[in-house]
Amino acid sequence: MARTGSKMHLLGHMCTGPTSHHLGSWRHPQSDAHLVLDAERYQNLARIYERGLFDGVFFVDFQRLNRFKEDSVGDWVHRGGGLHMLDPMQVLATMALVTRHLGLAATMSTTLNNHYHIARAFATLDHLSKGRAGWNIVTSYDKSEALNHGIGSFPDKNLRYDRADETVEACLALWNGWDEGAMTVDRQAGVFIDPSKIHYVKYEGEMVRTEGALTSPRPPQGHPVFMQAGASERGLRFAGRWAELVFTLQDDKEFMRPFYDKLKSQIVANGRDPASCKVLPAIEVVVGRTMKEAEERAAEVDQYAVPEIAIPGLSEMLSRDLRGVPMDTLLADVAVTDMGVAVPEGAFANTMNVRKDGRGLTIREAAISRVTSWGTPRIVGSPESIVDRMQDMFESKCCDGFIVTCPLSPGSLEHFVDLVVPELQRRGLYRTEYAGSTFRENLMQDD
Amino acid sequence: MARTGSKMHLLGHMCTGPTSHHLGSWRHPQSDAHLVLDAERYQNLARIYERGLFDGVFFVDFQRLNRFKEDSVGDWVHRGGGLHMLDPMQVLATMALVTRHLGLAATMSTTLNNHYHIARAFATLDHLSKGRAGWNIVTSYDKSEALNHGIGSFPDKNLRYDRADETVEACLALWNGWDEGAMTVDRQAGVFIDPSKIHYVKYEGEMVRTEGALTSPRPPQGHPVFMQAGASERGLRFAGRWAELVFTLQDDKEFMRPFYDKLKSQIVANGRDPASCKVLPAIEVVVGRTMKEAEERAAEVDQYAVPEIAIPGLSEMLSRDLRGVPMDTLLADVAVTDMGVAVPEGAFANTMNVRKDGRGLTIREAAISRVTSWGTPRIVGSPESIVDRMQDMFESKCCDGFIVTCPLSPGSLEHFVDLVVPELQRRGLYRTEYAGSTFRENLMQDD
Repeated sequence: MARTGSKMHLLGHMCTGPTSHHLGSWRHPQSDAHLVLDAERYQNLARIYERGLFDGVFFVDFQRLNRFKEDSVGDWVHRGGGLHMLDPMQVLATMALVTRHLGLAATMSTTLNNHYHIARAFATLDHLSKGRAGWNIVTSYDKSEALNHGIGSFPDKNLRYDRADETVEACLALWNGWDEGAMTVDRQAGVFIDPSKIHYVKYEGEMVRTEGALTSPRPPQGHPVFMQAGASERGLRFAGRWAELVFTLQDDKEFMRPFYDKLKSQIVANGRDPASCKVLPAIEVVVGRTMKEAEERAAEVDQYAVPEIAIPGLSEMLSRDLRGVPMDTLLADVAVTDMGVAVPEGAFANTMNVRKDGRGLTIREAAISRVTSWGTPRIVGSPESIVDRMQDMFESKCCDGFIVTCPLSPGSLEHFVDLVVPELQRRGLYRTEYAGSTFRENLMQDD
Repeated sequence: MARTGSKMHLLGHMCTGPTSHHLGSWRHPQSDAHLVLDAERYQNLARIYERGLFDGVFFVDFQRLNRFKEDSVGDWVHRGGGLHMLDPMQVLATMALVTRHLGLAATMSTTLNNHYHIARAFATLDHLSKGRAGWNIVTSYDKSEALNHGIGSFPDKNLRYDRADETVEACLALWNGWDEGAMTVDRQAGVFIDPSKIHYVKYEGEMVRTEGALTSPRPPQGHPVFMQAGASERGLRFAGRWAELVFTLQDDKEFMRPFYDKLKSQIVANGRDPASCKVLPAIEVVVGRTMKEAEERAAEVDQYAVPEIAIPGLSEMLSRDLRGVPMDTLLADVAVTDMGVAVPEGAFANTMNVRKDGRGLTIREAAISRVTSWGTPRIVGSPESIVDRMQDMFESKCCDGFIVTCPLSPGSLEHFVDLVVPELQRRGLYRTEYAGSTFRENLMQDD
């Protein structure tokens, strides 16, 4: 199998909760989940990611307690699932202090945050990290987030994306309001800022307006690396315009290839270089020195996960009432029912489209996948077998690298860095040192 | 002069700009202003404040460039004045890592921020700092901030304070939604959060609503220390209800005594212990081992300040067009003119009420005060003479301690810690070690 000659990009998937994707691994005696509110935990993880030469990390984030409702506490909260306990921006600022190259990205919603707050927060992070900030742009769809924020409900998806477009435009206007080198700090002349290098901004969209100037000088990267994950048609259009990194959740080359092509075409249609946007599907990796050790590690951590907990969430996500249905029923055989919530198109497709032995998933399979990897395709194996899979997807032009999620924090990540990274390097598929100093420089360096 | 037996509290005044109050000291060769975008600068300052056993520090903050208008860049920006370049919350998170006792407070506006964002941000800071967060509650009045945020203008002050009341209530509901000890991390039982210890929140105000739950467990302090600075009647009512620390700007015992009494009465009227709210006037301190050295230090730093720059801002603040008026004219002799902006009552009174040699200030005096200490009363002297002044105000029951601003960063702060703090301790007016571990514990410990 010939290499394309280019290098993969890796991004770490993080959250300010006990487990990124594995609902239960926090019970493992070696989990660091009890440190979930301590900066030291995230600094430790940051050092490991940087030791593994990851392009960066990003925090998935929701501003709500998962499935915590007026009439029921919900097993998710109880069992430590789907928690995003802290403001990721503050956590990233602490991670910046112990790293020098690692990209540092956070999710921030254009529906829940004012453009000025977004622009200032990411400018701050980009300054504090000297050019390593990334922004995962989301538009929010979870009704609980709306209620928390005192909004009855969200506008529909198209309007949310229109607002996201305007928010990015407004943020860019603010970031671009300062030319490079505007902060002169000329003590002799008494000029702290060269006034000819700041420009008064006037941005007037349909929904978003801003006038004035950002408090922060131009961020070192000009703007944070733009990430995006929406897989709907409208999401893809948004990605085509802005995204420099697209996070996908796909299991099968059959779906990945056309998605990759479609996304790259969107990039090109926007007059952009297709290499300027990296497509990174998420994989959950459990690695051992041998296949046997890997399987033991997977079993050891999976014993803590309870598939039944996934049923209410899966029911909503798939618009199918799975409660009480025998667990071995195929998902496709359950009747479609309105569950009263908006269905995220991408996540829906990524579950319903998975093929296993030539058929779709059963309820049990989907539920197990949900509680052990949040639906993320999982690879369990030796370093060689894992890199075989990664290399195949990469060289088949299904992706430009991977979002790596690790079921056990920090153990699975350490295993990945110690076992998978060297194998990737041995095959020439991955950097052996950081080439650039900013997040974008590393992300855009393919050789 | 007999001591009351109680100890003073000290709070450091910071900003994410080149100078806290002194417009020009950044030109001093020893200023750290060139590091204004680096976390290391703030961590260094935090260590010095903690070495000086300060109760805490707080970041003043405005989300705009001072006097940067469509038709003029404004001398302030150009000369490094009134800049608040970074998001203070991220900066405080980095300062938490290098300190163990120092309180860490930031300004956040209830007019510009959603309650859920505020509640989550301060819960995060309180967790990351293990109980040292403080919130300086402001309602915003600066038209530039409104324009930046895409709002045409702000509601009037009473409405803004009504919203602030509701925002604090909503935040408290969210913080209180989690009982202490809700996060059990019981690996054996598989219970990460005890569901009986989280409560579904429903808060419905006239302007602010929230429903659901905060993502963060109850902050270690229950809620951040509430700070407030408004000196208007409505501001005082707000302080009476919520404030644990009131920041004032007053020069004269004649005004401080009645203000102190009035505020403490407001606290009592709200059924609170008067000791539960500390009143801290700001002072700018320039200290030398001798009076001569202090005066030399003041002259050395003041040579960089240009009083004329203050004229446009003073004109607006005092509703008097001072442009072109001879600099030695008394402020009170200039006719009142509508300058087209809202006048902050407290700041207005604190400038117009200052008495010098039995008369009010001239334009020049006000302008010099503005550019060298932002109107903050300044004390220049030996450690003994400075502590004499502080002790007199403290023991006359004008205050419970001081907000300390330092013209030269970090030099003036180092001088304060090395010279003034030991003299305060020698007289039994100040702690010799931290008694508590949280911001509030130290702030409320008076002996």
